[in-house]
Formats: sequence, structure tokens, C-alpha cells
Amino acid sequence: MTRIRQLEPCDLVEVKEGKGPAEREREKIMEIEARNIERRIDGEYVVCLSDKGREMNSADFALFLEKRLSDSRAVAFILGGFAGLGERILKRADLLFSLSRMTLSHELARVVLLEQIYRAISTQKGRPYAK
Amino acid sequence: MTRIRQLEPCDLVEVKEGKGPAEREREKIMEIEARNIERRIDGEYVVCLSDKGREMNSADFALFLEKRLSDSRAVAFILGGFAGLGERILKRADLLFSLSRMTLSHELARVVLLEQIYRAISTQKGRPYAK
Repeated sequence: MTRIRQLEPCDLVEVKEGKGPAEREREKIMEIEARNIERRIDGEYVVCLSDKGREMNSADFALFLEKRLSDSRAVAFILGGFAGLGERILKRADLLFSLSRMTLSHELARVVLLEQIYRAISTQKGRPYAK
Repeated sequence: MTRIRQLEPCDLVEVKEGKGPAEREREKIMEIEARNIERRIDGEYVVCLSDKGREMNSADFALFLEKRLSDSRAVAFILGGFAGLGERILKRADLLFSLSRMTLSHELARVVLLEQIYRAISTQKGRPYAK
């Protein structure tokens, strides 16, 4: 995050997690989280992470991000928690995006996404990508 | 790794990294690493991680691993370093496998792979997958 912020204004917002006894309360958790997410989005270009989303390779993702960042609308990437993202949030997305066909834990998906954003913006700014 | 090892015998082998001034010496680095890798494989079912490989979702990967582990041959997952895997190693692979269409750093690819292996074996042993 710190590295991305050196190149491009950027915020990491964590909404309050919905609590409940896991699977059984899945719908309820997604509903609580959806409301918390809705409170934080306002006119952004919304990219929801979803295993049903479109996959891109790193070069295509960099092109996509370059195009989006040249627009006046900010981009919001939304990554669900344990229960996933509610239907309402997915419907609001401008793009459904998948990092992998595999199911990644929330924590790992977050790291992979941040690395790809950093990689894309570094390339765009002509900096060699450093691991 | 420790968690996987509780469920299934498993080793993490790191071969010596080829050193050289990055891009220019790429071929040489891959050659040194290929030799180091060859010294460590011996009859295993070899899965090379490659962005050109086949993608699987987590359920298919779990099925694949279950089938492989019921065989007498051990499975070796081979993950390249910065320079990637040499052609010779890729040719020796029984399967080329891709975690994502995106290019992941070596470190991140390793974590994603280990998480998927743990996830697959936990499911197989009827344990709920804990994050």
C-alpha cells in the first residue's frame, strides 16, 4: 500500500465485518457487509472481485488500470470477506474481475490484488517492477 | 507447510538460486537452476508452475491431487525463480499448471500454491478448511 501510494493516490478502506455463525448466517453477513460497503462507494468505477469474473493477465490488467486512471472517476476495488459479496454489490459493479480460477482466502486475495496494482502502476510509470 | 505436513508427508526443497545480472543472464540462470532442480527429482510426477499451464479451480485441483496422492509416485511441484523455469524442466513436466493468468512474484506464487495444497488435502480428509 505504501509503495502504491508513492505512485498514485490510493486508500485502503476496511468495512466492518459481518459476524455470525459462519455458513448458516451467510446471507445475513453479506447483507450487513453490503450495507457497509454501499456507505463507502459514491460514483466510483466499481470493480468487484469475484471467482465468476473476467480474468486478465498482468499486461491486460495494467492497460485496463491505465485507462481507468486517466478517467476522472476514481476506481474502487471491492473484495468480499469470508461469506463473499452480496448480489446487490455485484450488480452495482462496472466490472467483475477474477484473480484466479482458484478460491483464494480473503487475506491472500488482498495481497495478490495489491501486488498486481503496484505492478501495473510501476510499469505504467516506467519503473522496473521490483519484487 | 507445517499444517500440510500434519495431513500428508511433504517436503519443501529450495534449490540454490542462480545468480547473475538479471535479464541479461536469464538463460544462464535458468540453466544453473535447471541442473539444481534435476538433481532433486527422481521419478516423481512433476507439476511445473507456468503461466502457460492449465488453470484449475480449487475443486478440480483437489480432485487432481486426490488422484495423484492415491498413486505410488510422489508429486513434485516445481516453482521457478525470478528468471522462470528452463525449457528442459518444462519438457520433463507431467503437467504444466497455472495458478492465475496474472504473473505472480515467486514469493506470492509459493504462498498461493501452498494454500491450495492445504485446502485440497483438508477437504479430502473431511476437515473444514480453516483460514
